[in-house]
Amino acid sequence: MSQSPFATVQALVFDVFGTVVDWRSGVATQAASFLKAQGQASADPYAFADAWRKRYAPAMADVRNGSRPFVRLDVLHRENLEAILPDFGIQRKDVAEADLASLNLAWHTLTPWPDSVEGLTRLKTRYIIAPLSNGNIRLMVDMAKQGGLPWDAILGAEVAQAYKPAPEAYLRTADVLGLDPAQMCLVAAHNADLAAARACGFRTAFVARPTEHGPNQTTDLAAAQDWDVVADDFRALATAFGV
Amino acid sequence: MSQSPFATVQALVFDVFGTVVDWRSGVATQAASFLKAQGQASADPYAFADAWRKRYAPAMADVRNGSRPFVRLDVLHRENLEAILPDFGIQRKDVAEADLASLNLAWHTLTPWPDSVEGLTRLKTRYIIAPLSNGNIRLMVDMAKQGGLPWDAILGAEVAQAYKPAPEAYLRTADVLGLDPAQMCLVAAHNADLAAARACGFRTAFVARPTEHGPNQTTDLAAAQDWDVVADDFRALATAFGV
Repeated sequence: MSQSPFATVQALVFDVFGTVVDWRSGVATQAASFLKAQGQASADPYAFADAWRKRYAPAMADVRNGSRPFVRLDVLHRENLEAILPDFGIQRKDVAEADLASLNLAWHTLTPWPDSVEGLTRLKTRYIIAPLSNGNIRLMVDMAKQGGLPWDAILGAEVAQAYKPAPEAYLRTADVLGLDPAQMCLVAAHNADLAAARACGFRTAFVARPTEHGPNQTTDLAAAQDWDVVADDFRALATAFGV
Repeated sequence: MSQSPFATVQALVFDVFGTVVDWRSGVATQAASFLKAQGQASADPYAFADAWRKRYAPAMADVRNGSRPFVRLDVLHRENLEAILPDFGIQRKDVAEADLASLNLAWHTLTPWPDSVEGLTRLKTRYIIAPLSNGNIRLMVDMAKQGGLPWDAILGAEVAQAYKPAPEAYLRTADVLGLDPAQMCLVAAHNADLAAARACGFRTAFVARPTEHGPNQTTDLAAAQDWDVVADDFRALATAFGV
């Protein structure tokens, strides 16, 4: 443990997919309805969710390396959705536009982990709290309204015009809040995200989400570095931050 | 009245200075302490607030006409503050940096009109609500936390990188929300702001704030066009929108 994070931190910013909400169950639930409607009821909706998510990082790579202008995650999600359809026996031309558009919104209505809202509500009493997600603003707004996430602002990739783990995603978010990186703490269930934030001077808090990827998850089960805070859930996180 | 606004509107976005909060009283209160500390206790703090605010629109003009890159309102407020000091018998070199920085934050802690929080809270149950202010994100976050403004997101000039009444300020805000202009309604106490929004295709709602500029206000006392909604306060606004 380095110096107590409470001394300097003024804002806690959060990874969202996996850290605040359970994306896999939510996407699989919507995928199940979609697959059935497409005559593929025997396909595994969790495999569908995993396949869709697997294309997430590669899709952002072109934006991060500058070979593509910034586009919202909704756009990348839609491209990735169309790309995986053949793997599940579905041809793009056989699917109504409205059905694809509706399924693409599955990411807007993901359910928070059971401890997320209570922890955020407590943290909000003393700190600025905001998502620092690669999800776009409208996606985060819909999710917050549906799930009761009490954000002070919607920050992240779209405001920064940069996708994590690019340094600009973290540094521009601190700049928008008029804070030094050391006054910011990233909360994430992913060690790589925290490592990138720490490299920018952020404080770091790890909250394990051991079933994010399902019952057989092998990654991010424990802290890989001496993060400033390690907490079992968002209630413990709030306690660690003194609220 | 044109077609009922309830049929299409999904998001209500708000002018803030004057419409949601009482900037003049708040700034004057802080200015009074500052003037006293600078040995100018006989100066009128309301005149100070008015002088500071008067430079607001001209300061943004250079950004709007492209002769200056976008800078946050905090920056413009600070420049304008320094510019008016001599008019109140104060030399910049005689003032401690910390005192200027503190006074510049007066805009971050303005108090909502008595009906604002109730009206916004009711509107939030059915609509996306967000500021569409020229104030920067951190300013709006501080104001919301202090005043209990329950925004779903902090939108406006800094996200759009354009100052009202430039069309980009309205159109980029709609785009961020994935909405057509006709699905947006601007709420403002200023006819000129509403006229600019209407020219972009927004729905419009006028709420008079007849003491924004003090007891002798002569402007924006009534609706200058047939705005889609005209309401006496935010409670009546919520009622007009069916919540």
